[in-house]
Amino acid sequence: MNATDVLRGISENKPLVHHITNYVTVNLVANVTLCTGALPVMAHAREEVEEMENLASALCINIGTLDPNQIQAMLLAGKRANERGIPVVLDPVGAGATTFRTETAGRLLSELDVAAVCGNAGEIATLAGLAAEVRGVESLAGDAERAVAEAAHALGATVAATGEVDYVSDGQQTLAVSNGHPLMGRVVGSGCASTAVVGCFAAAVGGGDAETVAHALAYFGRAGEVAAEGAEGAGTFEPRFLDALSRIAGNPDYLDGGLRVEEAARG
Amino acid sequence: MNATDVLRGISENKPLVHHITNYVTVNLVANVTLCTGALPVMAHAREEVEEMENLASALCINIGTLDPNQIQAMLLAGKRANERGIPVVLDPVGAGATTFRTETAGRLLSELDVAAVCGNAGEIATLAGLAAEVRGVESLAGDAERAVAEAAHALGATVAATGEVDYVSDGQQTLAVSNGHPLMGRVVGSGCASTAVVGCFAAAVGGGDAETVAHALAYFGRAGEVAAEGAEGAGTFEPRFLDALSRIAGNPDYLDGGLRVEEAARG
Amino acid sequence: MNATDVLRGISENKPLVHHITNYVTVNLVANVTLCTGALPVMAHAREEVEEMENLASALCINIGTLDPNQIQAMLLAGKRANERGIPVVLDPVGAGATTFRTETAGRLLSELDVAAVCGNAGEIATLAGLAAEVRGVESLAGDAERAVAEAAHALGATVAATGEVDYVSDGQQTLAVSNGHPLMGRVVGSGCASTAVVGCFAAAVGGGDAETVAHALAYFGRAGEVAAEGAEGAGTFEPRFLDALSRIAGNPDYLDGGLRVEEAARG
Repeated sequence: MNATDVLRGISENKPLVHHITNYVTVNLVANVTLCTGALPVMAHAREEVEEMENLASALCINIGTLDPNQIQAMLLAGKRANERGIPVVLDPVGAGATTFRTETAGRLLSELDVAAVCGNAGEIATLAGLAAEVRGVESLAGDAERAVAEAAHALGATVAATGEVDYVSDGQQTLAVSNGHPLMGRVVGSGCASTAVVGCFAAAVGGGDAETVAHALAYFGRAGEVAAEGAEGAGTFEPRFLDALSRIAGNPDYLDGGLRVEEAARG
Repeated sequence: MNATDVLRGISENKPLVHHITNYVTVNLVANVTLCTGALPVMAHAREEVEEMENLASALCINIGTLDPNQIQAMLLAGKRANERGIPVVLDPVGAGATTFRTETAGRLLSELDVAAVCGNAGEIATLAGLAAEVRGVESLAGDAERAVAEAAHALGATVAATGEVDYVSDGQQTLAVSNGHPLMGRVVGSGCASTAVVGCFAAAVGGGDAETVAHALAYFGRAGEVAAEGAEGAGTFEPRFLDALSRIAGNPDYLDGGLRVEEAARG
Repeated sequence: MNATDVLRGISENKPLVHHITNYVTVNLVANVTLCTGALPVMAHAREEVEEMENLASALCINIGTLDPNQIQAMLLAGKRANERGIPVVLDPVGAGATTFRTETAGRLLSELDVAAVCGNAGEIATLAGLAAEVRGVESLAGDAERAVAEAAHALGATVAATGEVDYVSDGQQTLAVSNGHPLMGRVVGSGCASTAVVGCFAAAVGGGDAETVAHALAYFGRAGEVAAEGAEGAGTFEPRFLDALSRIAGNPDYLDGGLRVEEAARG
């Protein structure tokens, strides 16, 4: 569904989005969720994640600062989300950097029915079993367009690789999103935040088809473009970015003609 | 005690406020504590919370991202705070949303002598055993004024429900605080932050009577009003809000005539 | 090595800096690392810290919110860093405040080969076994200059005590850094952030000699001076500070004549 309609739906229904995420960018992720018009809730205790799932319209799992307890919580929450039929969105932060992260991402993907996977090209390539040279969380990979299509086939999920151009594929078609601004890559957590927006969109739509994911990323990128005007660096960009997300979410007509989502050359 | 006098006392004595809190808003809570003129310290290991309590002038407990280890730390720290006679302030984030949170809030309230409980109306209603429809952390409840009075009776503590108007009751009188700005509700953690300010005030006064809690919230709300002038959204509001808290704390005369604390119609 | 050359090296090689740090200031620490031109990675699970070390050029350990699992991770990561010969930088947040922190800092220093220790004067004095009255994380100590020299002797590491003037000693010479601005002390985590910058510099240089550490702190302080122009308080200062770090890192000539690093009177 297109961003304008999804944002209107979010604004109307204020879906609860449950995040099990890392402690580095958790505040940004929560604020981005709220600015997009949804209600964020963070909870990671095994004692409550399943019950929290009963209230939620989507579950976002982010493995940025993983530990064994958290993995158990992710599996419990994810299974409950699957039972209820609400979408699960996964951000495999650092997959490829350590065996622990790669294996955990793989385990989550095999034990859960994941609607959409959003990462950078290196993480996506790792998950698809492609050779990828991953170096920390800011890795670059050769061919993101090919990686998303192959990963979507391999994983049976919509897959997005964010970067200068974001590529999104459901295995059938591949979309390219060229909204965004270089300052976004200089804020810690912009990847986590874009996955949170995908989670909000998935909550509103009840799933994570390629068009919905691409439009979530386009809205996110468009807000970055708006916020960059007048920002003097990554520091002053971040609060302006939250303002822009919120302003657009409150008046989605603002997006008219501003989204750059296209069918990729191949897919 | 009124806000001007309390802020002067904080500024003079720089009390140490110990927070055991959630990892979503912990940075904001620490900065708000520092801007109010107190010294924040965060520590959650069972190995050290009791010893940390020996240095503190108040303990703030926030159950926003609870786990079993943290509960043990809260109980240890709270009992030591009670032994030393320093005030304990509780923010029951998400009480009512899951059984784990509701039961933990109840357990903390029954095992500890809590000076003040600050939450939103749904959380407060839950604690008072009232029927409350709680939905995540941004819940709305029908009648906050009644809820605080009943909860104060039921819990034997000062109880505050924050919202467009904040209500504070000690079971005898109920005060209404109408300072504040809508942007505050659009920043993740504004509730946690207001509880932190209550903790600073309780540290300075050595307790949490209704007037002190109401004045803490009025100062907090007044800073929000000041910060909202010129802010373009929740993102740019947040840093301006810290500036405003700090500016007022450094010169409390700034509050003259600006606080709106009144006896509520009933209570 | 001087700040200009080190910043050029960081910009060219983008070293990965692994932080095991507290959850209060972790976002600031990550953003400061990125603004300085390095790549931050946060990971604390025992399952992956050693493998992460294989990718890193420096390890920063910060004990601001300690728990037993984290200590194990710090020891595992630190030993691997020592094996690989990459520098380990320690921020002993709150050493002296509780026995748990003091003993943990001591244990890390005895079991690991630490290149540089950065704290406030009270923490440093505690580590050096000097009498120090420590009060929370914002302690003040009498004579930072003497403390760093004695601590450097006692610990066999470069030692920095940050404050209005920062003192850095390797036991032979003691340097004084007088860059900085009072607003820096009013942002939660400015100490953690300065240690992160020391970690970036150590990553680039492959060690933590006194000159390198002093220049890291001078760059950090100079960015604070730049950011303070036009800031209205600690809240609006913080994003401007990130901008300033980034602007200087991107064009180190900006530092010309702006660094105030001198041999201290004694050492």
